[in-house]
Amino acid sequence: MKIRVYYEDTDAGGIVYHSNYLNFCERARSEVFFRHGLSPVFGGGQFVARKIEADFILSAKLGDTLEVVNELLEVKGASFLLVQRIFKEQKMIFELRIMLAYVTFEGKPQKITPDIKRLIESLF
Amino acid sequence: MKIRVYYEDTDAGGIVYHSNYLNFCERARSEVFFRHGLSPVFGGGQFVARKIEADFILSAKLGDTLEVVNELLEVKGASFLLVQRIFKEQKMIFELRIMLAYVTFEGKPQKITPDIKRLIESLF
Amino acid sequence: MKIRVYYEDTDAGGIVYHSNYLNFCERARSEVFFRHGLSPVFGGGQFVARKIEADFILSAKLGDTLEVVNELLEVKGASFLLVQRIFKEQKMIFELRIMLAYVTFEGKPQKITPDIKRLIESLF
Amino acid sequence: MKIRVYYEDTDAGGIVYHSNYLNFCERARSEVFFRHGLSPVFGGGQFVARKIEADFILSAKLGDTLEVVNELLEVKGASFLLVQRIFKEQKMIFELRIMLAYVTFEGKPQKITPDIKRLIESLF
Repeated sequence: MKIRVYYEDTDAGGIVYHSNYLNFCERARSEVFFRHGLSPVFGGGQFVARKIEADFILSAKLGDTLEVVNELLEVKGASFLLVQRIFKEQKMIFELRIMLAYVTFEGKPQKITPDIKRLIESLF
Repeated sequence: MKIRVYYEDTDAGGIVYHSNYLNFCERARSEVFFRHGLSPVFGGGQFVARKIEADFILSAKLGDTLEVVNELLEVKGASFLLVQRIFKEQKMIFELRIMLAYVTFEGKPQKITPDIKRLIESLF
Repeated sequence: MKIRVYYEDTDAGGIVYHSNYLNFCERARSEVFFRHGLSPVFGGGQFVARKIEADFILSAKLGDTLEVVNELLEVKGASFLLVQRIFKEQKMIFELRIMLAYVTFEGKPQKITPDIKRLIESLF
Repeated sequence: MKIRVYYEDTDAGGIVYHSNYLNFCERARSEVFFRHGLSPVFGGGQFVARKIEADFILSAKLGDTLEVVNELLEVKGASFLLVQRIFKEQKMIFELRIMLAYVTFEGKPQKITPDIKRLIESLF
């Protein structure tokens, strides 16, 4: 998924504000659903970030075109693990490891059913 | 209401990103409710922006302390009009005229009851 | 220009947060430059919002695909006027009239030269 | 540092959008400087996020008052480590471990001088 850096993504330091790389990754996760005519909100729940680890390697600036690449690591009982990497002209500038928990609309953790597991594995 | 300008509010131009002045005004509208132990979401609805006119007079930058001042102009049948001014060291840097419509949770316009009219008039 | 609505664009009301329509319009203005291999920051300055008037007609929600259409109204001595309309499935949901002033990097107003006037007229 | 949750901080899931907890932590880091009459941009450089690890424990919603507490772990040769915890009514809802690198305005890593080390140790 390609993402363009606009003014709103940058800060007074002249580069992309650090937490916006997480937003770019979230767009790339949601877009996987949208592109298949699905919504990231489905059935009885949605996915929320539980744990993240991120490395900020290089910075992006206004007008840059970035690419987000998703890699599924593992689907567990109530969550799944994803690595998302952001590239700028073939160079990796950001890497995110994220654990996404499947929760009810009230925010309670819930089991990932075999159907949802298959869906995640087919999408990512 | 005092608002500090942080990195996230600025852009690569070195100043506050234009639409963030609207966010500052929205914070000031919501804060009026919060300070009275109320929520801006109440009874059968909430207020949404319907029309705005804004003048960007001077710019703010990282670390500035701004003050937002609200002035109620008029409560109409299904909306109310507010002027919100942002000051930086006594100088007005931004002025917003906003019409806020009262809508149901499905987004349908609805009447402002006398009770809600009194509430708005007492809050703003 | 097509814009997808992601989680970050929405708020607890379930719809796009009002000021984000301004961000979408700003993306569409910048993208005009980027698509021609140009930057919205050029020569001795950049454009900043000076006055806006906006109508919020209908709301957009997570996953919607929006289209922003720009129409140039007038290039004046030190600013230009643009109308930007956002459509969702052919229906106009937001309209912005914006005056953009040409300023130096220190934020001082400056004249739009004939070259820059021609550039704006050819781009928008 | 106290932070109020406004509409702009929430998303269509009804709770604070995940990356905004990072913004809250950044505000708390910058505020440490502002409260002492200093700027987080000083001398020959500024601090940028290099690595983060975060746990999203509980969620916050519109109107919540949060508190961010900073704890300095270590000042190294060209970076420092901070733990930042966000509390809602005494309960920890978010924890961030962040490595902040000291860089020049061109983004090059640079040494933390003894003066800057003392400053960091006195502020955090």
